[in-house]
Amino acid sequence: MKALVYTSSGEALQYGDYPDPTPGDGEVLVQLRAAALNHRDVWITQGLYPGIRTPSILGSDGAGVSEGNEVVINPGIDWGDNPAYPSRGYKVIGMPDDGTFAQYIAVQRNQLAPKPDHLSWEQAAALPLGGLTAYRAIFTKAKVSAGQRVLVTGIGGGVALMAAQFALAAGAEVWGTSSSAEKLQKAKKMGFAGGVNYKDADWYTQLSAHAVDFDVIVDSAGGDAFAHLVKLCRPGGCIVVYGGGKGLSSFKPQHLFWRQISIHGTSMGADQEFQDMVDFVAQHRITPVVDSVYALSDGNNAFQRMDRGLQFGKIVFSIPQ
Amino acid sequence: MKALVYTSSGEALQYGDYPDPTPGDGEVLVQLRAAALNHRDVWITQGLYPGIRTPSILGSDGAGVSEGNEVVINPGIDWGDNPAYPSRGYKVIGMPDDGTFAQYIAVQRNQLAPKPDHLSWEQAAALPLGGLTAYRAIFTKAKVSAGQRVLVTGIGGGVALMAAQFALAAGAEVWGTSSSAEKLQKAKKMGFAGGVNYKDADWYTQLSAHAVDFDVIVDSAGGDAFAHLVKLCRPGGCIVVYGGGKGLSSFKPQHLFWRQISIHGTSMGADQEFQDMVDFVAQHRITPVVDSVYALSDGNNAFQRMDRGLQFGKIVFSIPQ
Repeated sequence: MKALVYTSSGEALQYGDYPDPTPGDGEVLVQLRAAALNHRDVWITQGLYPGIRTPSILGSDGAGVSEGNEVVINPGIDWGDNPAYPSRGYKVIGMPDDGTFAQYIAVQRNQLAPKPDHLSWEQAAALPLGGLTAYRAIFTKAKVSAGQRVLVTGIGGGVALMAAQFALAAGAEVWGTSSSAEKLQKAKKMGFAGGVNYKDADWYTQLSAHAVDFDVIVDSAGGDAFAHLVKLCRPGGCIVVYGGGKGLSSFKPQHLFWRQISIHGTSMGADQEFQDMVDFVAQHRITPVVDSVYALSDGNNAFQRMDRGLQFGKIVFSIPQ
Repeated sequence: MKALVYTSSGEALQYGDYPDPTPGDGEVLVQLRAAALNHRDVWITQGLYPGIRTPSILGSDGAGVSEGNEVVINPGIDWGDNPAYPSRGYKVIGMPDDGTFAQYIAVQRNQLAPKPDHLSWEQAAALPLGGLTAYRAIFTKAKVSAGQRVLVTGIGGGVALMAAQFALAAGAEVWGTSSSAEKLQKAKKMGFAGGVNYKDADWYTQLSAHAVDFDVIVDSAGGDAFAHLVKLCRPGGCIVVYGGGKGLSSFKPQHLFWRQISIHGTSMGADQEFQDMVDFVAQHRITPVVDSVYALSDGNNAFQRMDRGLQFGKIVFSIPQ
C-alpha cells in the first residue's frame, strides 16, 4: 500500500510503498479515505515523544470503509474499564503502532463508530482525536450547559475549535482568544460572541471589559496567561486544561479557594465518550472545521503548516484509492 | 460583658468590659462557654484583612447555650442558595461583626446546630470553622470514600487535622506531613498510616518510598512543594486547596492532563454542609483535637502560640460564666 512513512527525526517524511497491515485478533481492516494531522504527529517527528520506533506510519485520525461500513476510528486503544482515567496499557494509534497516514490500517472492531452522514470524508477524518478530547473536556469535566459563558483559548487548534463548537451546540455563549485577527473573524462567523488577540499586551483588560465571570475556560496554552484565566473564572467555575508545554504560571491560591474554582486536567477520553461524541455530532449536525486538504504525497507541506501554527481547524490528508 | 477586644493593629488585645450584644431580627443570644482561635484571627490583628473595624471582638468559633439549648455556631453568615459558591454578602463572624471571644454573641437562629453530646465545651468550640472547611474539602469536593489513600499536609492545623479525622472516619488510609516529629508521632497515635517532615529536603523521596498514588491530597501550603503534590496524585485523583499564601509553584500541565487530575479550591461551606458536618461528628463520635485551653483574659498568649505555629489541633478559650 501507499503510506507516508516516518524514518527518523529531522528527516523529511517519505511517501511510498509499505507492507499492508495484517489484522490481528479482534481486528478489522479499514480502507482509509481521509486522515488528519494532530500536534502529536509533528512533535513525534521532532523527537519529542518517548519510545519512538522507525520506520513507522504516523496519524491518529482517520475515516474510511470497513466491512462495507463507512466509519470513523477511535484513536484510543485499551482505555480500560474506569471512565475516570486510562489503563496503563492505553495508547493512541500512530505510534508505536502504525497510524492512519496510509491506505489501510488494522484496528480493533470496537474502535469503530459510524461516520455521521452529513460529513464528507475529509470532515469525518477531522473529527476523532479533537472531538474526543473536546467532548470529555466540555461535557464530562466542565459539564457545560445552556446559557453558560465559555472561554476557549487558542481557537485555531483542532481541539479548541471542536470544544467551542460543542459548547455552542449546548447553548453556551462562547468567547475565544487567538494570535490572529483573521481567525477571530472566522470564529465570529461561527457564532462566537467575541474574542481577543492574546498577543496584545492588554488582552486581559480588553476581554474583561466585554466579558468576565466565565463558567468554564478551556485552555491548552498555560504560561503567564494562566493566572489571568483564574481571575476570569466566576465563583464556582472551572478551567479545563488539555495541554500546554509552558507550565502553568504561579497564581494566587486565594483566587482558587475563596472563589471555589476547580482546575481539571483532561486528555483523550474513554470508549463510551467516543461513541457519545460521534452521536452528539450526528444529532447536532456539527461539522468539524477543515483548514486545508493535502494529498498524502504532499505530507511534508502539511506538517510544516501545522508546525507554523497557521491553521484554523484541522489539516487533512485525502488518501488515494 | 467581659470580652477580648481588638483595638488596633500591632497593639495587644485588651481583656475587659464591652457592651452586651442586642439581638436583631431573627437573631438569638448565645451565652458562650468556649471559643477557639483560627489563623484568620491572628492575620486580622496583623492588619492582613480588608475592612478591619476597631474596636471589635474577634473569634469565629464558639459553643454555648441559647434558649436553654447547648449549641455550636455556624461561623458563616448568608452563604446563600447556591451550594457551589457563597453569595456576595457572605461573611464570617468575628470581623466585621463582633465574634466569639466574649461572654455573649448575637447570631441568626439558623446558624445554630445542637452540640454533639460526646464533646466537652472546649472540644465543641474547636469544631465549627475547621470542621466546616474540612467537611466540604473531604466530602463535597474530594468525595473521599473507604479504602482511598489521602494525604493531608501541615497536620498541626485545625482544618488539616479535622480533614484527616473525617477521612479516617470514612475508612480512608491517611498520611500526613508536618514540620515536627512530635506532631507526626501524635498523628500516628490517631490512626495515621504514616507521615514525613516537610522540612527535610528529601521529604518527597521519603514519602514516595512509602506511599504514592494518593486518591486525594488536602493542602493549604502551596509553595514549591505543590509541584510534588501533583506528582503524588494517582491518575484520576484530586488535590483540594483550602489556603496557602505562598502561591502555587509552577508545575507541568502534563502532570495534570495526562493523568486526569483535578485541583479544587474550597473555603468554608454552605449551611447544609454545616448541619451535615455536625451530624457526621455526632454519628462517628469524632473528637476535635484541642491543643491547649487558655483563659480569655490570657488571650495574647494564645495568639502568640498560634502565630508561632506550635499547636497540634485547636487553641481554645474557656469563657468565664
